[in-house]
Amino acid sequence: MSVRQGRGRARRAKQERRAISQDRPAWQLRNPYSPIEILSEDQVETIHLASLRVLEEYGVRMLHEGARDILRAAGAEVDAGTLRVRFDAALIEESIASAPSLVTLHARNPAHTVAMGQDRICFATVAGPPHCTDLERGRRAGTMADFDDFMRLGQAFEVIHLNGMPVEPMDIPPNVRHLNTAYAALTLTDKVPFVYSRGEQAVADVLEMVRIARQVSPEQFAREPSACTVVNANSPLQYDVPMAQGIIDMARAGQFTIVTPFTLAGAMAPITLAGALAQQNAEALAGIALAQIVRPGAPVGYGAFTSNVDMKSGAPAFGTPEYTKAALASGQLIRRYNVPYRSSNVNASNAPDAQAAYESMMSTWGALMGGCHVLLHGAGWLEGGLSASFEKFIIDIEILRMMAEFLQPLQVDEASLALDAIAEVGPGGHYFGAAHTLARFETAFWSPLLSDWRNYENWQESGAVDATQRAHNLYKQTLADFVPPSLDAAAREELEAFKVRREAEGGADIG
Amino acid sequence: MSVRQGRGRARRAKQERRAISQDRPAWQLRNPYSPIEILSEDQVETIHLASLRVLEEYGVRMLHEGARDILRAAGAEVDAGTLRVRFDAALIEESIASAPSLVTLHARNPAHTVAMGQDRICFATVAGPPHCTDLERGRRAGTMADFDDFMRLGQAFEVIHLNGMPVEPMDIPPNVRHLNTAYAALTLTDKVPFVYSRGEQAVADVLEMVRIARQVSPEQFAREPSACTVVNANSPLQYDVPMAQGIIDMARAGQFTIVTPFTLAGAMAPITLAGALAQQNAEALAGIALAQIVRPGAPVGYGAFTSNVDMKSGAPAFGTPEYTKAALASGQLIRRYNVPYRSSNVNASNAPDAQAAYESMMSTWGALMGGCHVLLHGAGWLEGGLSASFEKFIIDIEILRMMAEFLQPLQVDEASLALDAIAEVGPGGHYFGAAHTLARFETAFWSPLLSDWRNYENWQESGAVDATQRAHNLYKQTLADFVPPSLDAAAREELEAFKVRREAEGGADIG
Repeated sequence: MSVRQGRGRARRAKQERRAISQDRPAWQLRNPYSPIEILSEDQVETIHLASLRVLEEYGVRMLHEGARDILRAAGAEVDAGTLRVRFDAALIEESIASAPSLVTLHARNPAHTVAMGQDRICFATVAGPPHCTDLERGRRAGTMADFDDFMRLGQAFEVIHLNGMPVEPMDIPPNVRHLNTAYAALTLTDKVPFVYSRGEQAVADVLEMVRIARQVSPEQFAREPSACTVVNANSPLQYDVPMAQGIIDMARAGQFTIVTPFTLAGAMAPITLAGALAQQNAEALAGIALAQIVRPGAPVGYGAFTSNVDMKSGAPAFGTPEYTKAALASGQLIRRYNVPYRSSNVNASNAPDAQAAYESMMSTWGALMGGCHVLLHGAGWLEGGLSASFEKFIIDIEILRMMAEFLQPLQVDEASLALDAIAEVGPGGHYFGAAHTLARFETAFWSPLLSDWRNYENWQESGAVDATQRAHNLYKQTLADFVPPSLDAAAREELEAFKVRREAEGGADIG
Repeated sequence: MSVRQGRGRARRAKQERRAISQDRPAWQLRNPYSPIEILSEDQVETIHLASLRVLEEYGVRMLHEGARDILRAAGAEVDAGTLRVRFDAALIEESIASAPSLVTLHARNPAHTVAMGQDRICFATVAGPPHCTDLERGRRAGTMADFDDFMRLGQAFEVIHLNGMPVEPMDIPPNVRHLNTAYAALTLTDKVPFVYSRGEQAVADVLEMVRIARQVSPEQFAREPSACTVVNANSPLQYDVPMAQGIIDMARAGQFTIVTPFTLAGAMAPITLAGALAQQNAEALAGIALAQIVRPGAPVGYGAFTSNVDMKSGAPAFGTPEYTKAALASGQLIRRYNVPYRSSNVNASNAPDAQAAYESMMSTWGALMGGCHVLLHGAGWLEGGLSASFEKFIIDIEILRMMAEFLQPLQVDEASLALDAIAEVGPGGHYFGAAHTLARFETAFWSPLLSDWRNYENWQESGAVDATQRAHNLYKQTLADFVPPSLDAAAREELEAFKVRREAEGGADIG
């Protein structure tokens, strides 16, 4: 290539570069793909009708007296002896019709407000594990310091949209734990927080803290959902007191509840997927109906969590083929009700290893191609949810980054078809120096964070560090580099005063 | 549960068990899902037309004189100076129309005959690496002993349908290597073998050995494709002599060729996916047209391998979001031509670790949901194809087993809806002892081979062995347990005599 040719190429490249938009993933992800369908329309209807029959004939046991009263007043039949509540089909269909199809959750940083439903999808961190683990310190009960670190990681990565409750801080007394976790979530991050449904007082405390962090009026807060909870049915066919209370409290407050039956086929649900799905659907519809009866239009999602147990050991399995099929089938059912669909990135591995990665991929593909709108446990879940892993968190961040890029459309136009470049390079040539390449090379492709693409020799020379160890290094580095998001001084002061006062008052009885 | 209840349940369970079909994956897999579409119909047509323009205006350089002559005689325009062959659209469209949409490859064991195309899909082992690696012996040049071991592994797992050339046996002289690898493939396995296109004589030798192993007449062999090769275009827009020779030889022999452009975006293809796909399509159509012109109806597949290079290092990347998108888009193009679609299970990791697993999953999901019919490199590929890994082989076997189960339909009928079981168990109960469970627990769910689902304590007590180390143990155990498939004594004798004679004759000049 002559100097003149080189200059010409560079000039053309520069001109073209200006015209190329930076189409990296935006904060709000949209899923452009049609979901994969595993059921025929008839099969969807058959499962739907089976679940209505379960609700009408067998009913759901509601341990919460207030919930029974609300449902009786709405027309459900309550058996005072068994505490079973039976719903006829019309009551279910009419109640759930008022649930919104799109929910926008408002973060204290408006740039981190996020929507879920229709084609909008978002990713959340792990929620719930009692333990946490990393390569250096091993597996241990979670502490407040670990909770804080996971909050920092969730804030640091743009591909995380929602905080979960990544690990239980066992060193904080239960009565004030909600105050401390909410304070951490609202100061170390500016993304939408998670609320545990652990009784009326705890939920009220956390929602007030979320409102304070946003510095909005109670009226605006009630209009703008700003927090998220997950309510699990105590499958089969039962809601305990704190769970039903959570549905009621969050609906009254206009906040977002994801109703998630815990239907492990072979244990808490029939061993056949169709049966587990019918039961899941019955339980979810009962919970969604309760929310809508409490407050029509309350933001509520349908969480599908159907997996299976290992029939040899009784241990739950996650990220199995059955899990993936159930995620696809659940999406088809949920689209019938037109509410946001929550699925999960789960696995049953005991280490952040190859098994954790392929099981996570199996569940995440099922979730995304099932059309889910909220991917809970998006980063950090290990051991079937018993541990939050710092290394797995980073592995998952890479998986989510890949999926976020996969959701970006493929451009086809004259410039991207590159016929001039193909002519320029010609048979047997190479594209490294082509103007078309030079104009795009900086942003053409997705860039890895964790994946190491160097050749074997370079990788070997730099210590032959595998992905799990690299994930360890990356989580440490991310924490070392962490800068907390800015928070209005008045909001911080009010938040702290609230926390101190409520701690002094003894916190809350935890349900 | 009383003894009487227990007996009643057990009896019902036994009766029901008889009625439940064992619907485990059959040998021949079928893909029941509609492929994921990333391109609109207009975009598919735009890329198709762009590729026709490339073939008509720029042409493909054919280094093989015989291939140029064949194409000239068919109506293509050959430039004697540049060796470029230009095809008009009608020549391409008319030629490729004779390619069959479904190809059945006949194994020497008829139970291992396998079809690809339409809804039939099959999985092959890795093909091509010069190195192999395992945890014990590290990374090294491949040997005949390693080749044999990979053959044994490919035979041992039912989820493998086709042999690749898993590793290059560098300890065997090139002129007789094809005789030794074919002998191993035909004695250590009874599945369909792979043939390298390394010149006319080598291909003829191997095909004769495949015919001998099947003990069929030359006429029957020509009617029944029994071997598979991959021909790579020397992208951009070029076919070298051995590759074009391979297309010609295999088409004449009625054997199966997969034409696969090597279009790494940013290096051997435009940096934009649309451009890389247009070039891939032009190269593939030229190769398929050549096969059909040589022998209309010859079994030929379209291999899509478009990925991208890391623009920082120039290293190829695999299992990226771009790779997955290209796999989906390629499926849409290939369905337009109605020929079998080959995709791959690939990754760029240097170790059989979490990265290898998630990149493999990313590519395998793209392949399957892109509608591919042959998944090459299904098991064992590492380091962007430079090493065959024994541990990765087992990790991939587990991934393929999961995908094979994922392809099985979800049953929805009265028995699987389990309404009686849901009534029997009732709110807050459990399904472990239900008759519906007892009737199905042995076969209800997919069983893992590599995945460890035990709880953390049990896993820890048994040594906290991670998936990669377990894969190592499993590959060793599989080799220790290996029993070669039976082979007719006459066939073995004839095969051995052929090999000995051809070795004595000096083997073949390798192209």
